[in-house]
Amino acid sequence: QQKSAPKDATSFDVRGTPDVDVYIVHNPQVAKVPTCVPRWPLDVGVEVVVTMKAPSDAVNDNKVILSWRGTHPWKTQYISLDADTTRSGAAKRKTADKVKWTWGPDGQGAILLVNCDRDDPNPTLFSFGLLLPSDLRDMSCMILRTQGPDAIFDDHKLVLHISVSDADKVGVFHARGDDILHQYEHVLGSDELSYIVDRPSGQEEDTFYVEGLAFPDADFTGLVSFHVTLLDVPVENLPETPIFTDTVVFHMAPWIMTPNTQRPQEVFVCSMSDNADFVEAVSELTRKARCKLTVCPEVENRNDRWIQDEMEFGYVQAPHKTFPVVFDSPRDGKLQDFPFKSILGPDFGYVTREPSNEKVSSLDSFGNLEVSPPVTVKGKEYPLGRILIGSSFPRIGGRRMTKAVRDFLYAQKVQAPVELYSDWLSVGHVDEFLSFVPAPGRQGFQLLLASPSACYKLFREKQEEGYGEARLFEVTTTTIDEILANETLRRENDYVQSCIDWNRDILKQELGLSEKDIIDLPQLFTVIKKEASAFFPDMVNMIVLGKHLGIPKPFGPMVDGRCCLEEKVRSLLEPLGLTCTFINDFFTYHTLLGEVHCGTNVRRKPFSFKWWNMIP
Amino acid sequence: QQKSAPKDATSFDVRGTPDVDVYIVHNPQVAKVPTCVPRWPLDVGVEVVVTMKAPSDAVNDNKVILSWRGTHPWKTQYISLDADTTRSGAAKRKTADKVKWTWGPDGQGAILLVNCDRDDPNPTLFSFGLLLPSDLRDMSCMILRTQGPDAIFDDHKLVLHISVSDADKVGVFHARGDDILHQYEHVLGSDELSYIVDRPSGQEEDTFYVEGLAFPDADFTGLVSFHVTLLDVPVENLPETPIFTDTVVFHMAPWIMTPNTQRPQEVFVCSMSDNADFVEAVSELTRKARCKLTVCPEVENRNDRWIQDEMEFGYVQAPHKTFPVVFDSPRDGKLQDFPFKSILGPDFGYVTREPSNEKVSSLDSFGNLEVSPPVTVKGKEYPLGRILIGSSFPRIGGRRMTKAVRDFLYAQKVQAPVELYSDWLSVGHVDEFLSFVPAPGRQGFQLLLASPSACYKLFREKQEEGYGEARLFEVTTTTIDEILANETLRRENDYVQSCIDWNRDILKQELGLSEKDIIDLPQLFTVIKKEASAFFPDMVNMIVLGKHLGIPKPFGPMVDGRCCLEEKVRSLLEPLGLTCTFINDFFTYHTLLGEVHCGTNVRRKPFSFKWWNMIP
Repeated sequence: QQKSAPKDATSFDVRGTPDVDVYIVHNPQVAKVPTCVPRWPLDVGVEVVVTMKAPSDAVNDNKVILSWRGTHPWKTQYISLDADTTRSGAAKRKTADKVKWTWGPDGQGAILLVNCDRDDPNPTLFSFGLLLPSDLRDMSCMILRTQGPDAIFDDHKLVLHISVSDADKVGVFHARGDDILHQYEHVLGSDELSYIVDRPSGQEEDTFYVEGLAFPDADFTGLVSFHVTLLDVPVENLPETPIFTDTVVFHMAPWIMTPNTQRPQEVFVCSMSDNADFVEAVSELTRKARCKLTVCPEVENRNDRWIQDEMEFGYVQAPHKTFPVVFDSPRDGKLQDFPFKSILGPDFGYVTREPSNEKVSSLDSFGNLEVSPPVTVKGKEYPLGRILIGSSFPRIGGRRMTKAVRDFLYAQKVQAPVELYSDWLSVGHVDEFLSFVPAPGRQGFQLLLASPSACYKLFREKQEEGYGEARLFEVTTTTIDEILANETLRRENDYVQSCIDWNRDILKQELGLSEKDIIDLPQLFTVIKKEASAFFPDMVNMIVLGKHLGIPKPFGPMVDGRCCLEEKVRSLLEPLGLTCTFINDFFTYHTLLGEVHCGTNVRRKPFSFKWWNMIP
Repeated sequence: QQKSAPKDATSFDVRGTPDVDVYIVHNPQVAKVPTCVPRWPLDVGVEVVVTMKAPSDAVNDNKVILSWRGTHPWKTQYISLDADTTRSGAAKRKTADKVKWTWGPDGQGAILLVNCDRDDPNPTLFSFGLLLPSDLRDMSCMILRTQGPDAIFDDHKLVLHISVSDADKVGVFHARGDDILHQYEHVLGSDELSYIVDRPSGQEEDTFYVEGLAFPDADFTGLVSFHVTLLDVPVENLPETPIFTDTVVFHMAPWIMTPNTQRPQEVFVCSMSDNADFVEAVSELTRKARCKLTVCPEVENRNDRWIQDEMEFGYVQAPHKTFPVVFDSPRDGKLQDFPFKSILGPDFGYVTREPSNEKVSSLDSFGNLEVSPPVTVKGKEYPLGRILIGSSFPRIGGRRMTKAVRDFLYAQKVQAPVELYSDWLSVGHVDEFLSFVPAPGRQGFQLLLASPSACYKLFREKQEEGYGEARLFEVTTTTIDEILANETLRRENDYVQSCIDWNRDILKQELGLSEKDIIDLPQLFTVIKKEASAFFPDMVNMIVLGKHLGIPKPFGPMVDGRCCLEEKVRSLLEPLGLTCTFINDFFTYHTLLGEVHCGTNVRRKPFSFKWWNMIP
């Protein structure tokens, strides 16, 4: 071994031009080098013998190329473009195939983060052009290793390059000297497809920093390739000749959502002129759940209380870094500036999708975008759960989430979306009829579904027990007897039950659930102009903070001094170890067609499971 | 069992609305029906007992849904949308999940053909609107099975529907009565997203014919879904309620290329005013290989002899049908009308891709589109081989095949393309430096590469043997001595060898080849204005018809009355069981920068391996 061998190299490969015979002396055998055999071990017993079949016609007409380790007296080189292909958190030299990117626990291939946070803390100076040390920490390292006599690099050119189709997805910065701001040069990206690497004499490693600029989407698989090519310097009128190309592939980290079963870290709620009690109730629940509370003030919410609908919290993850990313809905209500102005910041990323020529509907609000806890469906694992969005299917031609948002969600691949039927609702959000709560058992959760049937059953039981005159909403005149006698309401709720049952079938099929994984919460709806909405506060539209549930207070019929709806819900959920707090949202949210879930938002802890270990 | 059970049904599923208790009496146990358990066996020992928890409030307020088999006295139904999901060649009822489409020998899911042939034999009447019985035979059957009392279908609506995104990819025809032309109605497609199925009393099967209209591409995965939904007829002002949806997914058959190792079926060549001898030589070779010869006459070729470049033959395959499809290059020379006017016909399909805003270059000619024989690369199988296209990579900003064509090729998925470096050539086609021939051994083929090094080695040997004055081209003054002494030619060919070596590395890596799978054919090139072309007829640019090779006659130096290049090539190829016929293409093709391969085209036998049995 010579000291020119990379420190961690344990094997090498050698190859000659056709007139050169290369022999390997591998103690004690002598064998002509076959190609495509496993690389030769780099141990003391191995020698390389090079002979020429004929004398050279010209200087350099024949060559021997050694990769991984050079031992030849007159020409030696080693060129490798390395990244963190083992997903260890640091760029290592790896003998495995860097051109392939594979999923799963045995997978390999490097990972890039979309640099979508704002590392400059002063928003007025915000500029992507300015590179901060904190930006560098979001980036992935790419190391160009070039070893061998300087002479080789003197009469060859070393070019780092990317394809046109990848150029707008990434930025590459070249580190020169110390970590001082102006020492980082933008060398590859849009309009910069290639960069001639100037290799100072004896320098064997050159570090580049790579940032992602685009999430996977309908027209982007998420894979980007970087190449380094050693070019022969042109002789006379001949073009440059590629001698050797090394390629490394990165996968852009997808945007990942967090289900109700993930630990809450921060709760968001809007402060309005009319909702001090509601904010206080949410605040109290947040204290119990021991997570941070962020109240969006009136000046920022501009009288828009639907903070669930304006954005969805998720995160991106690479072996070297994880940070939250808010997905800003194309809903764009009065809250529209909040995600960009107040959430985006250092290590808090931002992404949005605006439809180009489609109309945005209520189904584009992110109360219509949820994610299930991890599930296994007929043997197929979804360790990060599955995204659930409401759609018009199977109704023909109804409202549907815009293609721009759906395409983005599908393209992330790791939480394969399921489209449910929510267009039967006036507002049309999946959070109006379903929620997930943590629970003991195999699945680790229970699916809660709003259920008119369960409500009729409960009310009939109460009627039989003699409470037919108990009133809904305490002060109104609506009694259990009246509700049970109302044929129109009954038909409307049969219809609603059919719509929810259709979703129940899909949910069971697509999440691999059985009936025992589902809890029916008593709930009535009304149907006005063919659109359904909750008749009393919609209990399934709750906030879930670990074991603490904040449930819309239903104001149901009082039986023995207690609301029979609350009692029923407690009896269903408390045995699971959950605590139920009923929050009055009647006039501040319910009558405006929303509830507790619609009026809050939660940032949760990322999964401990790493997305690259799944097989989509 | 009742006779209403489908003949091949062996199990059933049953489910009730919340107020209904359903019991299964399974000899001798009685158990309340759990859901999501394996379906119940349909045998004599099984009975279904249905009880109500409370009296009905209204007619039809509670329901029991039986699928696969109905046994309930007052409500029974069975609705299923079936296709050939087992890939047997006929639509069968299948209990497996029709929503999933999976690859591989254990995969399942139905297949559609793009109806891209022209079944109307009279081109002047050619119209996609007219449905012929032969069109029907290209289509896939989809059978809607509806069993149960007519009463159910009287107060429900049965709707067949597709999503907007799938609507332009397919056409669905409804069979009514006998196989008479006007009895087929176009019921689903663009502008027809849903179709209300009119179910005549007692009719339990309704047949639909599905045609594909689009090949997989960058914006189309190839999967299309069809749904049937049973809708409750609206009560008063309520919307229709979906009760049950059944879905079946089809995958569009990809366009598949055939490598040189597939048996030739038809050879194409252009007849020009100057090439009678060439056509006769090709004709003779075709006779030996026992395949059909089609000569494109001057009136059709309009003096364009490059029939290899204008089109590529491939095929599409479904379990029920296989037919050839010509891919028309965007090259569009004078031959441009030939594929559409003369190849397209009954059971001969046509596809083309035109770039929208990119310039077409010589690299878009299909001499630059080849396919390898089946290979295995590091354990990954490519049972249909891999497509090889020439590109500018790793040169920056050179010519490259247009995105429209590349996207199409990649989207077919089953022959994952490899991009080679061909832009160093003046014409820039991969067939200028590589070919494949059938050969005994593990791989079943050998890769032939043009090799300047091999040619210099041969000429040096001949010089040493005393033949230095033997002349190339017989009548010219170029001798072996002169060639070996020409330093410029030597440098040019070193450059060419480097370019080919770079491709050799990629080919070894991406096709899993070793040196023993590669044969170097002696060949010299010249480089003019930085662009390379063959110095003498490019022997690798040959036509391969089984064991019969038609090779450009090189007119090499005569040694003992025989061309030493021909002798060398014979010595390399004849031991493989191949016969070499050297065809004079010097003035009719070679001096126009093409050779035998460029001037011919071959339709070959489809693979016996079915594409859906691979895992891409």
